[in-house]
Amino acid sequence: MFGLFSSKWNPDGQHCYITGGSSGLGLSLAKILARKGANISIVARSQKKLDAALKEIEAERQTPNQKFRVYSFALDTAKASTDALEAVCEPYNGETPDATFTCAGASRPMFFVEMTDEDLIKGMNDGYWIQAWTAWAVSKKMVRHGRKGKITLVSSTLGFMSIIGYASYSPAKHALRALADSLHSELILYGINVHIYFPPTMYTPGYEEENKTKPKITLKIEETDAGATPDQAASALFQGVVKGQAHIAGDLITNLFRASTRGATPKNNFIVDGFYDLIAFFATPVWRASVDKAVAAHATEHRQYLRDRGFYS
Amino acid sequence: MFGLFSSKWNPDGQHCYITGGSSGLGLSLAKILARKGANISIVARSQKKLDAALKEIEAERQTPNQKFRVYSFALDTAKASTDALEAVCEPYNGETPDATFTCAGASRPMFFVEMTDEDLIKGMNDGYWIQAWTAWAVSKKMVRHGRKGKITLVSSTLGFMSIIGYASYSPAKHALRALADSLHSELILYGINVHIYFPPTMYTPGYEEENKTKPKITLKIEETDAGATPDQAASALFQGVVKGQAHIAGDLITNLFRASTRGATPKNNFIVDGFYDLIAFFATPVWRASVDKAVAAHATEHRQYLRDRGFYS
Repeated sequence: MFGLFSSKWNPDGQHCYITGGSSGLGLSLAKILARKGANISIVARSQKKLDAALKEIEAERQTPNQKFRVYSFALDTAKASTDALEAVCEPYNGETPDATFTCAGASRPMFFVEMTDEDLIKGMNDGYWIQAWTAWAVSKKMVRHGRKGKITLVSSTLGFMSIIGYASYSPAKHALRALADSLHSELILYGINVHIYFPPTMYTPGYEEENKTKPKITLKIEETDAGATPDQAASALFQGVVKGQAHIAGDLITNLFRASTRGATPKNNFIVDGFYDLIAFFATPVWRASVDKAVAAHATEHRQYLRDRGFYS
Repeated sequence: MFGLFSSKWNPDGQHCYITGGSSGLGLSLAKILARKGANISIVARSQKKLDAALKEIEAERQTPNQKFRVYSFALDTAKASTDALEAVCEPYNGETPDATFTCAGASRPMFFVEMTDEDLIKGMNDGYWIQAWTAWAVSKKMVRHGRKGKITLVSSTLGFMSIIGYASYSPAKHALRALADSLHSELILYGINVHIYFPPTMYTPGYEEENKTKPKITLKIEETDAGATPDQAASALFQGVVKGQAHIAGDLITNLFRASTRGATPKNNFIVDGFYDLIAFFATPVWRASVDKAVAAHATEHRQYLRDRGFYS
């Protein structure tokens, strides 16, 4: 649209800031960007993981001039995310990164009626605020300094739709999508491009963690999911950003949901998106009916489960 | 789908709980439900507004047996919403309402880079949590008591898409949509139906309030919006619930976004939704391009605005 996305992005020599960059998707992305000649700053909590990540990124170094730095910060408040950004900018004369990728986040699926208020709040913090605060801090600073560049958020297939078990996670991932859509419109004012990636199930340490609390029925509905490795997901994310896509999806299922959930979002490809939408128009009701049927069939077993957990007493 | 939505809902003699029921959409809905013979409990903050609302609802009374009650409670925390629900259930031997409508909420549009962290948090509280906590409290209680019934959330056209100015509101309204979609799937386990209504611009006291902080460019983009009166919006909401629609929209623009943003959401009407989607497929890129162009053309004036506000200093 009016030239904003006409040329392909090249990370060579750019300063790329990746939150949640010490493992999973963030680390895989850092390695891709290092291979493409970028300078990398990553922020995560654990210094130990950051040190290990730095070694992996170093192994991808292309030139002696590339700068790779790691920082241990929490990102769960506006202040923490602002402090992290300041530290990341400092070696660059206080200048903001050219491209920011907010990969931090976690999911904890469980039954809605078993969630405490803390579970719901934690879901929003770990799924939304941990990325929103970085987007907020970096946008303000970029605009203040008159800098152009990129901000890329990371949602999930569950930012397009939801099923049983994700009542704390899916709202956060939908909220991120709305934030990206809002900023995509608003940051046109400053020449800042906004992207958002919707990964499918990723086989990461976080995934093993979330399966611990995931309801059985949710696991069953997901058992046919193909999923992606962090490297595959990072590659899809990178390709989408290079092409300047607003909503990025790398797998067929997520593309079907993307195309049939686009609303006013810019299309990636008019023909292909139309085709996806057409398939989704007929396929999603069939899929949905099967899922709803599986949930309904689970009701008796589920009542026993709740009884065993003392829910009714 | 397997009989859940096969019969039309009749509120006659049912206990309907409406949050935000003292003005705007909530009050209009309360009056419709009173005319249909329902018992009504409304919760809002201001006792003065509640007293005035009660008089309006009384005027719609059909039988001497109908019970109309009002309660002054905040709803912005899990505890406050639980306390409000307990008070509402008390005259019904502690039983949960047959139908809950969460109409509470407010929007405060402004530029993202001018938002403080409090503005963003307030946006999520007023747009999401104020309804989510009631949905959470009522779901738990209904499941515990083995009660069937309805929960209806209220999002916005901005729960389907977003534009400049809504970076604190649209994420909350998308989050509500994801909560409804999650619960629609999950509460099948208990025979509880979940609906969500997406009103367009409504000419309410809240609308006048939000226009005070709304960026000029956002007002300009919205100037061709048709909008709806609270009575029109409440009527659309009521009709959608009667028909058992998962996603309810009452105006053409919102229906276009609804149909082109459905993902895995149950369709309201296979033929009509397909037609809407087809129009949206060609129309939304044109609309979007015009909005993006208007934003870009506003950039110079906007920089002057930020300068006048002392943003760069």
